[in-house]
Amino acid sequence: MKRKADCIFCNIVEGTGDASVVYKDDFVTAFMDISPIVEGHTLIVPNYHTSGLTELDAEHGARIMNVATRIANAMPSSELRCEGSNLILANGAVAGQTVFHTHMHVIPRYAGDPFKIQIEAFGRGTPSREQLESQAASLGALLK
Amino acid sequence: MKRKADCIFCNIVEGTGDASVVYKDDFVTAFMDISPIVEGHTLIVPNYHTSGLTELDAEHGARIMNVATRIANAMPSSELRCEGSNLILANGAVAGQTVFHTHMHVIPRYAGDPFKIQIEAFGRGTPSREQLESQAASLGALLK
Repeated sequence: MKRKADCIFCNIVEGTGDASVVYKDDFVTAFMDISPIVEGHTLIVPNYHTSGLTELDAEHGARIMNVATRIANAMPSSELRCEGSNLILANGAVAGQTVFHTHMHVIPRYAGDPFKIQIEAFGRGTPSREQLESQAASLGALLK
Repeated sequence: MKRKADCIFCNIVEGTGDASVVYKDDFVTAFMDISPIVEGHTLIVPNYHTSGLTELDAEHGARIMNVATRIANAMPSSELRCEGSNLILANGAVAGQTVFHTHMHVIPRYAGDPFKIQIEAFGRGTPSREQLESQAASLGALLK
């Protein structure tokens, strides 16, 4: 399994890094974030080193989503305060990624919790249908 | 395929709703968000109606992640400005969900773009290892 020396998440996968592990299988490892945005904040990583999404294979990506979903669905029945959840993946420094081993965040949410994604404060665009069609065609052509 | 009357995303899947479709297969439909946080903001939905994560089956979840990854990886080569990306899923109103048909956001990111997740402004917790172990055990027991 590809690993990177001094990657803190590779060390957790390997069992040499200190972590509170929620779940582990042949594809992914899930563990508690030590600096939770909201109490219970959990991370899911592939068991091999890959920094972003370009080298993440479909099988590991599928398992990340599956385990993230199962953890999100378990949270309301656990000891955590949880009335909803966010799944978030930051792909690249510009997207807020700080540890460069691909990871999905599962963040439990409740009314009045400390996490706010202040989308509305920044406004949202109002593109024309022509612009949207052009963007859809540009992206769609790359997915054939 | 289960659908819900008057669900705007069910209508888009069905082809009766106005949308700029990026991609569609037997499992998922991807289309441009009409109120993009950042230009190129794309949504991926399962082709059947389900509001959150509890009823999302593994096969559709896997395909959502696969298509989200492929779109994120296509964005830098498209006409969009893109230096990174965020995958975000809001599960429940308390998590910011506003359309109650499960959807994954793919948001292209670039330096100076209008989207900021202001995590640091809210601080992050510093739980003890004992607290993290308890949370991990509580969640892990529900995943057996």
